[in-house]
Amino acid sequence: MKIYSKNILLGISLLFAITSYAQKTVYQYVDPMIGSEGVGRVFIGPSCPYGMVKPSPDCTVSPNSGWLPMPKEVTGFSQVHVSGTGGGPKYGNISIMPFSGALDKMDQTSFRAEENVKLGYYETVFKENNIKTEITTGEKVSFYRITYPKDKSKELKIDPGFFLGEEKIPDAREAQQFVGSQIEIVSDTEVRGYSRIRGGWNNGRAYTVYFWAVFDQPIAKYVTFKDGMFYNNQKAQFDSGKKTGALLSFGNSGKEELNVKIGISFLSELKAKNNIEIEIPHWNFNTVLVALENKWEDLLSRIKLSDDTSVEYRKMFYTGLYHTMIMPVDRTGENPLWTNDEPYYDDFYTIWDTFRTSSPLITLIDSKRKVDIINAMLNIYKREGYMPEGRSGNDNGRTQGGSNAEVVIADAFVKNLKGIDYELALQAMIKDATVPPGGNEEREGRGGLIDYLKLGYVPYGTDRAGNRTIDYSYNDYNIATVAKGLGKTDLYNQYIKQAENWQNLWRADYENNGAKGFIMPKDKDGNWLDDVVFGESKIQKPTFKYTPVIIESPWYVCHWCVFFYEGTSWEYSFSLPHDIPELVKKSGGEKAFEKRLDIFFDNNLFNVANEPSFLTPCLYHWIGKPYLSSDRIRTIIKDNFNTSREGLPGNDDSGAMSSWLAFHMMGLYPNAGQPYYLINTPLIKEVFVKLENGKSFKITTKKMSDKNRYIKTALLNGKPYNKAWILHDDINNGGELILEMDSKPSAWGTTILPPAK
Amino acid sequence: MKIYSKNILLGISLLFAITSYAQKTVYQYVDPMIGSEGVGRVFIGPSCPYGMVKPSPDCTVSPNSGWLPMPKEVTGFSQVHVSGTGGGPKYGNISIMPFSGALDKMDQTSFRAEENVKLGYYETVFKENNIKTEITTGEKVSFYRITYPKDKSKELKIDPGFFLGEEKIPDAREAQQFVGSQIEIVSDTEVRGYSRIRGGWNNGRAYTVYFWAVFDQPIAKYVTFKDGMFYNNQKAQFDSGKKTGALLSFGNSGKEELNVKIGISFLSELKAKNNIEIEIPHWNFNTVLVALENKWEDLLSRIKLSDDTSVEYRKMFYTGLYHTMIMPVDRTGENPLWTNDEPYYDDFYTIWDTFRTSSPLITLIDSKRKVDIINAMLNIYKREGYMPEGRSGNDNGRTQGGSNAEVVIADAFVKNLKGIDYELALQAMIKDATVPPGGNEEREGRGGLIDYLKLGYVPYGTDRAGNRTIDYSYNDYNIATVAKGLGKTDLYNQYIKQAENWQNLWRADYENNGAKGFIMPKDKDGNWLDDVVFGESKIQKPTFKYTPVIIESPWYVCHWCVFFYEGTSWEYSFSLPHDIPELVKKSGGEKAFEKRLDIFFDNNLFNVANEPSFLTPCLYHWIGKPYLSSDRIRTIIKDNFNTSREGLPGNDDSGAMSSWLAFHMMGLYPNAGQPYYLINTPLIKEVFVKLENGKSFKITTKKMSDKNRYIKTALLNGKPYNKAWILHDDINNGGELILEMDSKPSAWGTTILPPAK
Repeated sequence: MKIYSKNILLGISLLFAITSYAQKTVYQYVDPMIGSEGVGRVFIGPSCPYGMVKPSPDCTVSPNSGWLPMPKEVTGFSQVHVSGTGGGPKYGNISIMPFSGALDKMDQTSFRAEENVKLGYYETVFKENNIKTEITTGEKVSFYRITYPKDKSKELKIDPGFFLGEEKIPDAREAQQFVGSQIEIVSDTEVRGYSRIRGGWNNGRAYTVYFWAVFDQPIAKYVTFKDGMFYNNQKAQFDSGKKTGALLSFGNSGKEELNVKIGISFLSELKAKNNIEIEIPHWNFNTVLVALENKWEDLLSRIKLSDDTSVEYRKMFYTGLYHTMIMPVDRTGENPLWTNDEPYYDDFYTIWDTFRTSSPLITLIDSKRKVDIINAMLNIYKREGYMPEGRSGNDNGRTQGGSNAEVVIADAFVKNLKGIDYELALQAMIKDATVPPGGNEEREGRGGLIDYLKLGYVPYGTDRAGNRTIDYSYNDYNIATVAKGLGKTDLYNQYIKQAENWQNLWRADYENNGAKGFIMPKDKDGNWLDDVVFGESKIQKPTFKYTPVIIESPWYVCHWCVFFYEGTSWEYSFSLPHDIPELVKKSGGEKAFEKRLDIFFDNNLFNVANEPSFLTPCLYHWIGKPYLSSDRIRTIIKDNFNTSREGLPGNDDSGAMSSWLAFHMMGLYPNAGQPYYLINTPLIKEVFVKLENGKSFKITTKKMSDKNRYIKTALLNGKPYNKAWILHDDINNGGELILEMDSKPSAWGTTILPPAK
Repeated sequence: MKIYSKNILLGISLLFAITSYAQKTVYQYVDPMIGSEGVGRVFIGPSCPYGMVKPSPDCTVSPNSGWLPMPKEVTGFSQVHVSGTGGGPKYGNISIMPFSGALDKMDQTSFRAEENVKLGYYETVFKENNIKTEITTGEKVSFYRITYPKDKSKELKIDPGFFLGEEKIPDAREAQQFVGSQIEIVSDTEVRGYSRIRGGWNNGRAYTVYFWAVFDQPIAKYVTFKDGMFYNNQKAQFDSGKKTGALLSFGNSGKEELNVKIGISFLSELKAKNNIEIEIPHWNFNTVLVALENKWEDLLSRIKLSDDTSVEYRKMFYTGLYHTMIMPVDRTGENPLWTNDEPYYDDFYTIWDTFRTSSPLITLIDSKRKVDIINAMLNIYKREGYMPEGRSGNDNGRTQGGSNAEVVIADAFVKNLKGIDYELALQAMIKDATVPPGGNEEREGRGGLIDYLKLGYVPYGTDRAGNRTIDYSYNDYNIATVAKGLGKTDLYNQYIKQAENWQNLWRADYENNGAKGFIMPKDKDGNWLDDVVFGESKIQKPTFKYTPVIIESPWYVCHWCVFFYEGTSWEYSFSLPHDIPELVKKSGGEKAFEKRLDIFFDNNLFNVANEPSFLTPCLYHWIGKPYLSSDRIRTIIKDNFNTSREGLPGNDDSGAMSSWLAFHMMGLYPNAGQPYYLINTPLIKEVFVKLENGKSFKITTKKMSDKNRYIKTALLNGKPYNKAWILHDDINNGGELILEMDSKPSAWGTTILPPAK
């Protein structure tokens, strides 16, 4: 290669760089198994981006994503799942299970001998009978290729009575409950039916999953079943509130391979059939798989990483993007509640989890989709009265803290997403902020709102008074943002004032672990509470001492009834994304705040698995020490994220955890609802973002190494750039951010602090 | 006949009396056409008692009960209707229409040449084509016998896209909106499909009506249609949010009579099919009709009238009972929202209308049914959070005034209905009284509750502040009643105090038309308002003068936003069924109150069509002049009720108006929520009530004539009875009340006044 002149070399290297971005595919770096074990709970089966259908093995009725690692048995393969959720499971509808043998046994549970998973593809071989099941999927249709051993007969169970999370107790909290199911053998190659289930984590009303299954071999014989009894040659089992299903035999002649397409619909069985006809009119498994890969490649390749990026980092990054874009799910054309031309999305699970990173990541790389999602939220508001905070199975619920649709709207507004009626959106936000949601305050809107408006905080005694107060004050800030942008000064003034409400629970003189000032419980009369109620005796007044490190509650007090939802005051007292300069001040100034952050991270008070702490590692930015943020982030990622099955440190929560990682690997981190990204040291040397407007933005590091991990200087489009944050508009206008790295912290980014409120 | 001795005569006459009660049928006195024209809006088609299926002609899309008088055209016959409702229509699902001719025209609207209606039976002959349609029905299956002229071909349109009350505007208030529909031709004798509709008067979520239609002749040819387009030989039209249907031809050979059974279900098409198989497995129209007649006879014959009762009175009375028992509808086994063993009822339309008379009448003659209905209400509370006030299409809504499930519960409690968990019921009542229902306060619970609890009244500015205040105070009285009965003294004390809240809106010095003291609007700060807001200008403050005779509101102010819902202060200032002695006092004492009542009735301030005034004619009882009550009632009935098609003076509202009449014809009138009936002069000489406990109660008048219309003395089981009211228990224990009549008022009933609160 020495013979070429320098210029030619440069030319070739540029060419290589361009072509390397343009031609190599990236989807193969997605590993759906990352985060599948441990606490990640990600969905491991095939799914289109935002795909309605998510087929996967179910290993017993308990796990949220259906799948569990070997040697756990497989009960069947159902067609609808969610990804990364905690709490009680949802879905797991329309289960099928291949087997060999007589049609006389309801339970066909099997062990796996092997299992292979890649993007869009799942494969397993059962230990007992050597049956191989391969799965891929379309948007609304799942596709199974089942290969039976040569000498064995081909049987298949279809079980629309199955669902995840069954419990014996009627209305058990967070448990799905059976309402009804139905099955009909339509012809020797078709079966139709449905599953109707209520409850689950979000305590939703009944939803119905309709199916139409088609086979490429004729049914030779069958039995149907209902309520545990078999019925020979009875073609249909109607819905009488009992579980129904069928065992089908395809005999042992003909080919060993049975292909099964299962169309799904939330409207009707015929619509499910039509979904097959429209989407997968053929029998080619690979065609379906390739179409799915292409859809993902189109999305994933909008961000390209430099060629020197390690395979491990590629896997972590692209799997992060992948996990971010499998929920919410696109159910446009499948809404059983109303019909119009608006997009319809379900499985906001939940916005409390996703507003911080998943939602902004979708805005960055798939903003048209984001507009659709927000319009779906507004459509839900128009028809049902409130935007969703959580939503699943066509019903709102639950709220954990704030009414965080406000953050999503404000984030879209400050990032100039077009095609949204922001006047309507403001109306929807103000509804959250002014109208109490009625009896079930875990459904939507803001619980404890009346007190919040009257007192400026949610008093102790209302469930989750602490995080509700700080979330509402942030949500009020979001309303102020949009009101201001729309020129509504009165509204702005009102809500920017309410945005300070978190300060009403700031107990300034309270010390703990070397820090001073915490969000602490206060009663209706304005008294700080050192001891809070323990138990429900009407004679005694049992209490326990509440401190900023307490997360647990007495065993008989519900998980949802504590002062802070799933966290401590140490965590939540940092979770004020709109008012950090004030928080710094209240914490005793920059030095005290730095110490406070150090104590937090050095004493294991930080919980990487908990969304309210997502922004906390970046808070050093606001005291002019962005390099400390980068140090923390680097350590957190090193200690908690990897490409293993336990590679996610918490519930992925519809991609919340994964998108946190993806942002930080690029060196950007959003503060949702605000128009900028914080800049940190990237993990990847060059990141190329192909924007939807046709432009591109590149983040290039120079001299970066394990040692050279501090930003020395920065150039934005060739000009010195000394802010440790960058506006969304600057990225969206295209260009290049060059970060020159050094082995020690510099003065870069230390003088101009990120925006205050 | 003179040859018989007196004793023999007596024996024969007793025998005759007994046999006449026991053997004659009464169902034939029901005339479904009473109240069908004018304002009554009753359902005129066949219906089982509380029957889910109510087939009837639909004459254009606008009328609430489907039917309109000739010469209006018939658009089709749909299978689900309600009876007597005002406001926007609901239902009208699964329309069929017989015709003759080519399968090329969507609209097959026809004029009627004749029409015949009796209990359980509807018949019409179309003018254009001489096709005769006869209808009868089971509980969940309607049965059509269609006779085509000999020379004509037999066609039938099936239109699951049809529904009542269609408007172009999406989400138009009170209008039903199309969500989806589907149709499939299953075989040459079967068609299946569904209609999914949302909205309507109660603004309910989407509900789905599934059907399975079977024919006794084979389909010779067909076209299906979708979104206005025909599709030849396409067997199915799946749901894509567009209207679908089919035109079927049964050719012109074979018999002229086509029988059609349409099974209906709210779960699935197969359940609808099963409903046919279980309920009407045969093709005998008359068998279905006779079964229906027998069901009605069993219920109606629980009250027998003396033989000398005129046919007109028989018709008025039994039709009154009939109208009372066609709603709410029994949907046990048809609940798509949850599955359990509890009864499920829908179409509480609305309890605001029915709590006064329909509900107590069902308690009197069909108390087991009442227990089921109340358990269904409690089941709705358990699953959905609030008992219904109104409910239709499987969704709560709307509220007009109070949370009147409280009255129904209290009424059951004081009348000792067994089989109800009153602890749970009290919990449900207290939920209404303490938890604001959230954004849509017309859905359930109590709107304006926060102010009501804080101020003791609903201030002007909240919609329907006036009647909400007085209804809530009555509902609080109902809670106090049950709390007391369950030994909960604290609760009793709290709610019996709140029961006085109506007094907070009593403007003592306000005079109008010669009466003093009225329920009048008051603002949040406690100021009486002479002028109330007129319009929504932010610059001007337009107002109009509010007086006790005002019912109308400015044209642009919604019907639902006024101070009193559908009434004046004159009317509502009498509507305090739990506190009449206090009302008498506040009105200036007995004499002033009598004058006030006289002014009310003599100056046309009384509105017979409005439920809040139902008790008012009886208020003379509380000033010791029950004969004046009887005079008013007699005049009201004479002037407003008869057996004509315009024989009901207001919307029948699920039998509210009809049961008011039926009670008064017997001489009894309930004060719902309280354990007694007021006694008035009956219209019928002898009324024999066969109680469900095997006992019987008879009300016998002596010497009653047009002239002798005042009660002179009374005997209860042979003992002098001088109270103008009788306890439910006294009736339920069986016996006889003998009223001896005279031509002038007597001292009877004047000294012991009916119960105070």
